[in-house]
Amino acid sequence: MPEYKAPLREIKFVMDELLDMPAHYASIPAYAEVATPDMIDAILAEGAKFCEQELAPLQRVGDIEGCTRHEDGSVTTPTGFKEAYAKFVEGGWPSLAHDEAHGGQGLPESLGTVMSEMVGTSNWSWGMYPGLSHGAMNTIDLHGTDEQKHTYLTKLVSGEWTGTMCLTEPHCGSDLGILKTKAEANADGSYAISGTKIFISAGEHDMAENIVHIVLARLPGAPEGTKGISLFIVPKFLPNEDGTPGERNAVTCGSIEHKMGIHGNATCVMNFDGAKGWLIGPENKGLNCMFTFMNTARIGTALQGATAAEASFQGALAYAKDRLAMRALTGPKAPEKPADPIIVHPDVRRMLLTQKAFAEGGRALVYLAAQQNDIVKKGETEEERKAADELLGFLTPIAKAFLTEVGYEATNLGVQVFGGHGFIAEWGMEQLVRDTKIACIYEGTTGIQALDLLGRKVLMTQGASLRNFTKQVHKFCQAEEGNETLAPLVATLAEYNKEWGDLTMKIGMAAMKNRDEVGSASVDYLMYSGYVTLAFLWARMAKVAQEALANGTSEEEFYKAKLTTAKFYFARVLPRAKGHAISMLAGADTVMDLAEEHFAF
Amino acid sequence: MPEYKAPLREIKFVMDELLDMPAHYASIPAYAEVATPDMIDAILAEGAKFCEQELAPLQRVGDIEGCTRHEDGSVTTPTGFKEAYAKFVEGGWPSLAHDEAHGGQGLPESLGTVMSEMVGTSNWSWGMYPGLSHGAMNTIDLHGTDEQKHTYLTKLVSGEWTGTMCLTEPHCGSDLGILKTKAEANADGSYAISGTKIFISAGEHDMAENIVHIVLARLPGAPEGTKGISLFIVPKFLPNEDGTPGERNAVTCGSIEHKMGIHGNATCVMNFDGAKGWLIGPENKGLNCMFTFMNTARIGTALQGATAAEASFQGALAYAKDRLAMRALTGPKAPEKPADPIIVHPDVRRMLLTQKAFAEGGRALVYLAAQQNDIVKKGETEEERKAADELLGFLTPIAKAFLTEVGYEATNLGVQVFGGHGFIAEWGMEQLVRDTKIACIYEGTTGIQALDLLGRKVLMTQGASLRNFTKQVHKFCQAEEGNETLAPLVATLAEYNKEWGDLTMKIGMAAMKNRDEVGSASVDYLMYSGYVTLAFLWARMAKVAQEALANGTSEEEFYKAKLTTAKFYFARVLPRAKGHAISMLAGADTVMDLAEEHFAF
Repeated sequence: MPEYKAPLREIKFVMDELLDMPAHYASIPAYAEVATPDMIDAILAEGAKFCEQELAPLQRVGDIEGCTRHEDGSVTTPTGFKEAYAKFVEGGWPSLAHDEAHGGQGLPESLGTVMSEMVGTSNWSWGMYPGLSHGAMNTIDLHGTDEQKHTYLTKLVSGEWTGTMCLTEPHCGSDLGILKTKAEANADGSYAISGTKIFISAGEHDMAENIVHIVLARLPGAPEGTKGISLFIVPKFLPNEDGTPGERNAVTCGSIEHKMGIHGNATCVMNFDGAKGWLIGPENKGLNCMFTFMNTARIGTALQGATAAEASFQGALAYAKDRLAMRALTGPKAPEKPADPIIVHPDVRRMLLTQKAFAEGGRALVYLAAQQNDIVKKGETEEERKAADELLGFLTPIAKAFLTEVGYEATNLGVQVFGGHGFIAEWGMEQLVRDTKIACIYEGTTGIQALDLLGRKVLMTQGASLRNFTKQVHKFCQAEEGNETLAPLVATLAEYNKEWGDLTMKIGMAAMKNRDEVGSASVDYLMYSGYVTLAFLWARMAKVAQEALANGTSEEEFYKAKLTTAKFYFARVLPRAKGHAISMLAGADTVMDLAEEHFAF
Repeated sequence: MPEYKAPLREIKFVMDELLDMPAHYASIPAYAEVATPDMIDAILAEGAKFCEQELAPLQRVGDIEGCTRHEDGSVTTPTGFKEAYAKFVEGGWPSLAHDEAHGGQGLPESLGTVMSEMVGTSNWSWGMYPGLSHGAMNTIDLHGTDEQKHTYLTKLVSGEWTGTMCLTEPHCGSDLGILKTKAEANADGSYAISGTKIFISAGEHDMAENIVHIVLARLPGAPEGTKGISLFIVPKFLPNEDGTPGERNAVTCGSIEHKMGIHGNATCVMNFDGAKGWLIGPENKGLNCMFTFMNTARIGTALQGATAAEASFQGALAYAKDRLAMRALTGPKAPEKPADPIIVHPDVRRMLLTQKAFAEGGRALVYLAAQQNDIVKKGETEEERKAADELLGFLTPIAKAFLTEVGYEATNLGVQVFGGHGFIAEWGMEQLVRDTKIACIYEGTTGIQALDLLGRKVLMTQGASLRNFTKQVHKFCQAEEGNETLAPLVATLAEYNKEWGDLTMKIGMAAMKNRDEVGSASVDYLMYSGYVTLAFLWARMAKVAQEALANGTSEEEFYKAKLTTAKFYFARVLPRAKGHAISMLAGADTVMDLAEEHFAF
């Protein structure tokens, strides 16, 4: 099994050198006092230790044991999960990035993202238990009454309770407009919730004393479709007056799904049999309320792609240095051994560098989004909050879909580096593949993200959100034109950046005649956007490295490796965008011409 | 779980209309009498029934139960596997394509490939038990003594016994030159074999009364490396004088691997503790002997890619017609239902068409290779055998690596079409992903195939093998230039075909200065070759369809679907080759510049 080592140097590179997080924190009044560099270093060191020592060793246990549902509907999590969670709560980790008003430490949400990266890379399935609480906390924080905040939010922030998001039903996931779960008013102001929810991550478990379900349901007579959905808080145990968990509510785990991966996480079918719940937010505005923090949730899933790439890269790199096979084509590199370590072979290096480029580039993209999220939440002026929100909205579908797709690819490369051993469970590489596939699906599939990007974010703004971003890229390219080291990268980036706008224009024109052009082009458009966005970030990382080298540094090899990886990305990965560019312009006829009944004979 | 329906119309399209197998069989004296159209139709119909009814229902059972090793080293296969195998033997399927001299039915090996396709699509893990026997049969047929053939081959042909290939050891797979298993001469002319072999598919099981292991081992004092390896027959039970299985040999299953997929197949660690074996073929020529049928084995694995695409396509298509979500962007298509079936959405269609293009294109490529294999084995003249062998040698690494990579992609698309349900085991889609990943690894990884193609097949022949193929493509393009329907496809194909030669020339030149250029470019080169080879086959299939439509047909929609799929492939899949073209020319520095110790800090 690959051993996890938190890549603190890499994390600091993105935080301090690429995104200047210290200045960013200093500029936000809510963070200026608490998020000091010393504090952050201490937290990261402590967090790294926790993830390396407590969570990574449970990664394979979780896969092997999975979760067990008992006859009474209770669920036992894998050996060690519960104890690790207790230490997590004891260490104060759940409250890290929450408001002090609710018992939080008031640290930046982006710092929480960094911690989530380390948690997720060491053990994604475990991380989903505290991770799912975020959705519940966001909902209550943004839309709950003071009483609801007092009763639920403080318990969630402390980690004593965990939360879930109950959206999906057997017949609907992406299309929540057709959901059937019902909510009927009780005399006491509460509601009786009835229906079946599926795919509920962390829906039932033994790690916390109570579970707070946020449930989408329909009120009697509610309008059809997405405009008739309301949000409810449905706790597993109804809170007593003193806030302790009381009477058991009629919400139970009906079964645990048998899944491809993330076995350590209890993915539950949840039955609501007239369970007691309370409306949160306005009637029939449930989906709107949820959309207010959709970006945050999706960035959390984008992170899974980056963490998967990092975890698989760490495993594959160690193996590639150790495993002997063949001699280098240019002659023996380890003549004292029976064969050379496979890292001498160009194609093994191509695979490792691809993983590395996605892991490090992915981190940069996720942190950039997290930085915007800080501003959206706590920025000083309306203007900067609005600008950050726009950029975040544009980056979110790209980060979510592109990083999960390439993160998944990276896990598959990890298996491939191991050869036959990659297929064997003990090595842990195939688990990463199985655990990661779901990231391309939940929180909106790649197809859904692509429609969000091209349809809602780009075309519905007449391209404004894209232009805001390509302008940034353009400015960077202009500024670095004369930079000898960066010139080749910058020239390439500028071309793609221009083409991005041209492609958008063409699809926009075609879509005016035929709406199917959007759906036909969307995934190619999204992947193109992802490759170019990552190219921008790699060019910026190259710039940081080049400046450090020019200014003199004791870490010469570190910065040189950054430059080399950037060059690799531009030469060996970015060209894939060319194929997407051609494919997205091929026209909707290419996919719509075949009648449904003629797909097979 | 997807239900398997043997795509007989598609199979016949490739056999009869694309490759003119009837004429091919008629032209080979060994087959002319036996492989009549009526006979073939009857066999296919019977085979389809067997696979649909006996094997497909065991697909999920095999995954869930896996194989169980008992304390005595014996292995129980999943429920139903043994019984299905008994029926398979009773039906005479193992002997289908083997020489009558050894009890076979003397039918063409390509017909065996078609049957293997149906077996493999319905249940790949099950198919590996009879499948592995092929290696053993080929070895004995080509290199065994008459006595060895009499003792072993007839039992393998009848299916009473099965076989294995014991190559890999814990420390070596691709690099067999460093293997350690020893063979020491006994007084009676036999050898005592000692060592550990791993990843032995069908190494131990309860389906046949004896198992014939073909084992690679070293004789005392043998030269180091690949030139010191010999081949041995090591039966599980030593045959008695009368041919029945006698004394138990000292070869035992030490454990069964825990794998990502193909759980129904017993992948064994095999311990040879002075097991009795007999030399087969000349001393120290074991690897050469094995290479004589490497193409056949690799085509068998290429088939796994095509079957995976077909199986996943069948599952995803049925689901896409059934599952309701959202309305079509162009307005409701099923207004009487709460939402439209997801097949109305362009991106779902893009995924289905991608699967379809790989399944049908993959079948065409595998059958083309199988047709060459027929000629290699039974062609009338030395000249035609040699030409077929060259073409087969060129196509083999492309078919093996490209089809398994895109077949794996197709299984992932199948999961994606299902959304969250794709991640759930009951639907059977994620099993296809897990079962298929190994295809990119065993029988030589994608990286190994790529070196074989670019290094051995193309550059070592100074490009002759490539030119022989591109000439065929060129001739086709010239002939169809004036064909109005095909013109756009043909023009595109001609461009790629020319570029293929240009790219090869450039890499060849660069490789003369730096051998690492080969390894650096190889996988991109292989994928490029795969996309263009499949484009050639899709263009040829389009031609068949266009002619049928021009001549009048009662199956208009079938042929139109072929044309539409061909156009889809050219417009939406082939452009990926552009990215590979750029990437392969980027130079070895892109992967070699980073020092081993600077991949991570």
